[in-house]
Amino acid sequence: MLILQTVEELKEWVHETKKAGQTIGIVPTMGFLHEGHLSLVEKAKEENDKVVMSIFVNPAQFGPNEDFDRYPRNLVRDQQLAKKVGTDVIFAPSVDEMYPRDSSIKLTAGTLAHVLCGAKRPGHFDGVLKVVTKLFHLTEANRAYFGQKDAQQLAIIESLVADFNFSISIRRGQTVREQDGLAKSSRNVYLSDVERNEALHLKKALEIGKTLFLKKQDPVEPMISYLTEHTSGKIDYIELLGYPSLTKTIQNDVILALAVQFEKARLIDNLIFNPKEN
Amino acid sequence: MLILQTVEELKEWVHETKKAGQTIGIVPTMGFLHEGHLSLVEKAKEENDKVVMSIFVNPAQFGPNEDFDRYPRNLVRDQQLAKKVGTDVIFAPSVDEMYPRDSSIKLTAGTLAHVLCGAKRPGHFDGVLKVVTKLFHLTEANRAYFGQKDAQQLAIIESLVADFNFSISIRRGQTVREQDGLAKSSRNVYLSDVERNEALHLKKALEIGKTLFLKKQDPVEPMISYLTEHTSGKIDYIELLGYPSLTKTIQNDVILALAVQFEKARLIDNLIFNPKEN
Repeated sequence: MLILQTVEELKEWVHETKKAGQTIGIVPTMGFLHEGHLSLVEKAKEENDKVVMSIFVNPAQFGPNEDFDRYPRNLVRDQQLAKKVGTDVIFAPSVDEMYPRDSSIKLTAGTLAHVLCGAKRPGHFDGVLKVVTKLFHLTEANRAYFGQKDAQQLAIIESLVADFNFSISIRRGQTVREQDGLAKSSRNVYLSDVERNEALHLKKALEIGKTLFLKKQDPVEPMISYLTEHTSGKIDYIELLGYPSLTKTIQNDVILALAVQFEKARLIDNLIFNPKEN
Repeated sequence: MLILQTVEELKEWVHETKKAGQTIGIVPTMGFLHEGHLSLVEKAKEENDKVVMSIFVNPAQFGPNEDFDRYPRNLVRDQQLAKKVGTDVIFAPSVDEMYPRDSSIKLTAGTLAHVLCGAKRPGHFDGVLKVVTKLFHLTEANRAYFGQKDAQQLAIIESLVADFNFSISIRRGQTVREQDGLAKSSRNVYLSDVERNEALHLKKALEIGKTLFLKKQDPVEPMISYLTEHTSGKIDYIELLGYPSLTKTIQNDVILALAVQFEKARLIDNLIFNPKEN
């Protein structure tokens, strides 16, 4: 497994790989890998000749009062895990390597970022668009892999690719969960033991909400009651929208999503389903 | 010469061309071709196996009170001219083909668009960035060709490519001029006979300004006097900036640029030069 830290090294590898007629899959991550990331690599392995995983805690997608500095990092462990699942290249650049200068030109997510996490984290998805665009261009990847746990991110990136004609295919990965249902997340390490036990109720609340919605009942109030009763976390939002349009207009799939702020970790989770098929 | 009108046709051609290991140069235009465009094709022919010219009057870069509807168009004549200089493919899509739906995601030029034409045409360069990004992705071109007459556009596109790591090389084409010095422009057809004679003084004013600047004298006031005396047009701006930074900080090259509004045509012109080499 190659570990590349500079744009020049990556471009050279991409050039050689393309020249050899091989396809490339990219799995963009912020590191501190868990099984969610690794399942994306496994999917990418099946569909591409070579798999690049980027590991970059992207400052552009953190707000001034968010957890950029204390976001968990462990590159040594990440390398071992990435190697074990057959990653061909890790691209782990420095911030200066990715952002050598300020850019006057901006990508903004617009109304797609006015709901769910975007409403609570102004500028977050603009930062995601920036880094993802750069990674797509640098790797010239045929396919890119994103988990459905970050459902709004996935929807926004799908829109980016469609609206700006990127020649990359976006592949969705299922959310990977702990045995008790908690969605895997790098931020789970910041839960206290008590909070960790409470956190299994996020998925349960979503299941309750889904069942109510399918019976044409309001899911939100009962979910608030349930979460308030079973966790000490503060509910950031509970929303039900069309997916991936992220609008109130529901055509096929819907997303039922929530965010709960615990003491040191803000957790998100969601269910995406087609009401007609349930 | 192929004439393609849909994104799907273009993508198929690009796929086949890339598979054959051939390089692609793109010359983005709004049609109504003149020798400036054709010189870009000739340059592109020298440096690439295949040359695509796009012909698309891009509504996204016209303001509500600008000349989108009456922008000159003549696809039949354009095809003849493009063929004569060896263009391999014309891509001439409809507006619906390029913009099948509204996009929530926007590219904005920022401070680079707060000077020169950008200050007078809000949103213009955002629209340029949008169409150029789409064309770069669709053609997967190795090189793209832009004329220095649209110097601010060129600087902004160079910044786009650098800051977002596009794998495309931007190539600058010299401004092509009429015998009397008037810069070739599709909009020149809208000049009256009197205005056409006056318009040669734009280049002369720039030369006067450059000479003064090199003598460390203010170029702007004398240029205003000269243009007021020799043309009936209204001066939109005269500016001197670093290039391609488009800031007041001059490091190497400078741009001396002007815009003059005639009755039915707004003309722009500029000189880019390195004061240390003059």
